Amino acid sequence: MDSEFRITEREASRVLDRCDTLAGLTEEPGVVTRRFATPALREAGRHVTTWMEAAGMKVHRDAIGNVIGRAGDPGLPTLLIGSHLDTVRNAGRYDGILGVLVGIACVELVRDLPYAIEVLGFADEEGVRYGTAYLGSSVVAGRFDHAALERRDADGVRMRDALKEFGGDPAGLEASRRDPDDLIGYYEVHIEQGPVLENENLPLGVVSAIAGQTRATVTFQGQAGHAGTVPMALRHDALSAAAEWIGVTEATARGREGLVATIGELRIEPGASNVIPAKATLSLDLRHGDDATRAGAREELRDRAGAIAAKRGVELDWSIVQETPAVECSRELTDRVSEAVAALGHPVRRLASGAGHDAAIISTLAPVSMLFVRCAGGISHNPAEAVTLEDVAAALEASVRFLEALR
Amino acid sequence: MDSEFRITEREASRVLDRCDTLAGLTEEPGVVTRRFATPALREAGRHVTTWMEAAGMKVHRDAIGNVIGRAGDPGLPTLLIGSHLDTVRNAGRYDGILGVLVGIACVELVRDLPYAIEVLGFADEEGVRYGTAYLGSSVVAGRFDHAALERRDADGVRMRDALKEFGGDPAGLEASRRDPDDLIGYYEVHIEQGPVLENENLPLGVVSAIAGQTRATVTFQGQAGHAGTVPMALRHDALSAAAEWIGVTEATARGREGLVATIGELRIEPGASNVIPAKATLSLDLRHGDDATRAGAREELRDRAGAIAAKRGVELDWSIVQETPAVECSRELTDRVSEAVAALGHPVRRLASGAGHDAAIISTLAPVSMLFVRCAGGISHNPAEAVTLEDVAAALEASVRFLEALR
Repeated sequence: MDSEFRITEREASRVLDRCDTLAGLTEEPGVVTRRFATPALREAGRHVTTWMEAAGMKVHRDAIGNVIGRAGDPGLPTLLIGSHLDTVRNAGRYDGILGVLVGIACVELVRDLPYAIEVLGFADEEGVRYGTAYLGSSVVAGRFDHAALERRDADGVRMRDALKEFGGDPAGLEASRRDPDDLIGYYEVHIEQGPVLENENLPLGVVSAIAGQTRATVTFQGQAGHAGTVPMALRHDALSAAAEWIGVTEATARGREGLVATIGELRIEPGASNVIPAKATLSLDLRHGDDATRAGAREELRDRAGAIAAKRGVELDWSIVQETPAVECSRELTDRVSEAVAALGHPVRRLASGAGHDAAIISTLAPVSMLFVRCAGGISHNPAEAVTLEDVAAALEASVRFLEALR
Repeated sequence: MDSEFRITEREASRVLDRCDTLAGLTEEPGVVTRRFATPALREAGRHVTTWMEAAGMKVHRDAIGNVIGRAGDPGLPTLLIGSHLDTVRNAGRYDGILGVLVGIACVELVRDLPYAIEVLGFADEEGVRYGTAYLGSSVVAGRFDHAALERRDADGVRMRDALKEFGGDPAGLEASRRDPDDLIGYYEVHIEQGPVLENENLPLGVVSAIAGQTRATVTFQGQAGHAGTVPMALRHDALSAAAEWIGVTEATARGREGLVATIGELRIEPGASNVIPAKATLSLDLRHGDDATRAGAREELRDRAGAIAAKRGVELDWSIVQETPAVECSRELTDRVSEAVAALGHPVRRLASGAGHDAAIISTLAPVSMLFVRCAGGISHNPAEAVTLEDVAAALEASVRFLEALR
């Protein structure tokens, strides 16, 4: 069979139509909000089930409410293709969704593979409702934290009760772990959620790794004082210390290929225009595809913060909130994805994903690979999220070529 | 008469005792809070009146409620000595009060001057209740803004009604302007409210000017983005721009003698740890005793902010909130004050006041001079405000010498 013959913009157009259909299934009219275990998510799962069944797949829901469709005889080695069906509040139409629908479209287009495909629509990746991301993929990977069942959402509803109401089974979560013995691997198509591909005028990117992350809270404690009466030389200004360190952080990240460092939160106290800031509390978010690079930068930033604090006579508090190691994508699968992209005539751009994805959790179960699709302005988690028909067609064609080469 | 003989720690001790007495007259038990036109302020005025009368002064209240005591025959040239009786919330015991009580003590100590002394206890300098500072001195200077009478405090009480209740006279405010024709000048003793004297181990300072002030709101508008997916080179981080400018501001102030620049407020949006800041809004407070120096620094800081914004692809909004010119103290009076300080054996430290004072308003009526008293840690507007008995004795002795030299 010739995939170039089959895959047309008509197929990609159907994927986009389905994204639009799911966007209409929302908790809040007028915007896209579809959190874990809500009626909107159940309705989305029904549509996905219908499309999977129309593609000849056998569909079931697991204990957390993931929608899983299988194409292929029992006993065959199996490739998982997945992403998530839930969204953030006031979301776009493609984050997660696109990967599930491209998976279904692949099953529609690819025939007679020597292996089975299971397409997974995860019930929770964003974690908006309960503050715990990756609920869906963690059940599949057998890494679900059962303590999370006692969490309550903003309305006081326990996850355990919400899950039952959703048709899930709190007692069956362990049994929903996917047996890895027959797995070839996992493949996820996702919008880039960043501007690299657009900036380089490329429709597709091949993910080399999912970046590890350090989150820290950094506090400079100086001394308040009157803005008019304390000479510059006698100040212990917490914000001036923070500002110097922000500059150091930016320069450090710029100086190391692929490193990103973000100060997204900054609070100063007391916070009055005529009072020298006594305290500045900052968040640090540091990411890189290579853990050693990230750890080196983290240590350097801590040392520099300490030196700035000492020089200025202020106190430094450095507190690590979270450290998540990087996840390497499977070299073998990623090479196959790259070959498929190259076969379409596109340069192969490998890049680390700075955002987390279900693939990171599934990597504990099977080798993983990801294909990024260019999105307008790199914008995501926003109604302005946008992809082009041509790029989705390219992603679909590359995916079919990848699946066929895997035979 | 020999002032060295008369002025002892006993006299200074009485001043401090009276500060303690007034500290007990408060709106909030346990802390010192005495706002304009409150029963606590009326009670403080009664005590001050009693002490003035005991010192042989003729006392009246003007239309805004300032307590004014006169020692000396009618028709004599007159020196005003004053400061304020109101406080901030949760105040210390000396800000303002000390200057009024030193004034009364001077009258007790100095005899047979060829001029009259009027001691003024201003009813409002802090402006806490109505958000308008210097109500007391502005009435004396004939600069009261009558529109302020319609302002309401946090409880909805109009200033006009509060003033009547206080025993003042809204219709008599203009008539309460002090005729300047017989005035020699104005003299104010005040705690430094800053750390310069303590840092230089000096009890007293002679004020050369009251600094002018520029208040501005500075906004850098960049572009939000995902902390993981947007490479450093593609960012338009509003906080990074702000941090660079904060560093420039600090360096600019350090590079110009006497200039102080403070960023006391900084808000970033959206303010999430995993989102690149789109917007940073900062307050700038810039002060110097010389207006041209301040204006030069202001223009330089605006230019540098513009250059930083342009380089980083972010927008700058620069908005002046307030500009207050500097007030020069009278060279003649200040030289006399300096001579009195030198006669005590102390080095003469001239410094600009970074904080505003009643003297700035009275300068529109008569030549002004100020003497600063060291305060512990430079702390003010705080219950920890503290002076020593020795320093108050030095201030009292210097004041008496100044008054006697003025004969």
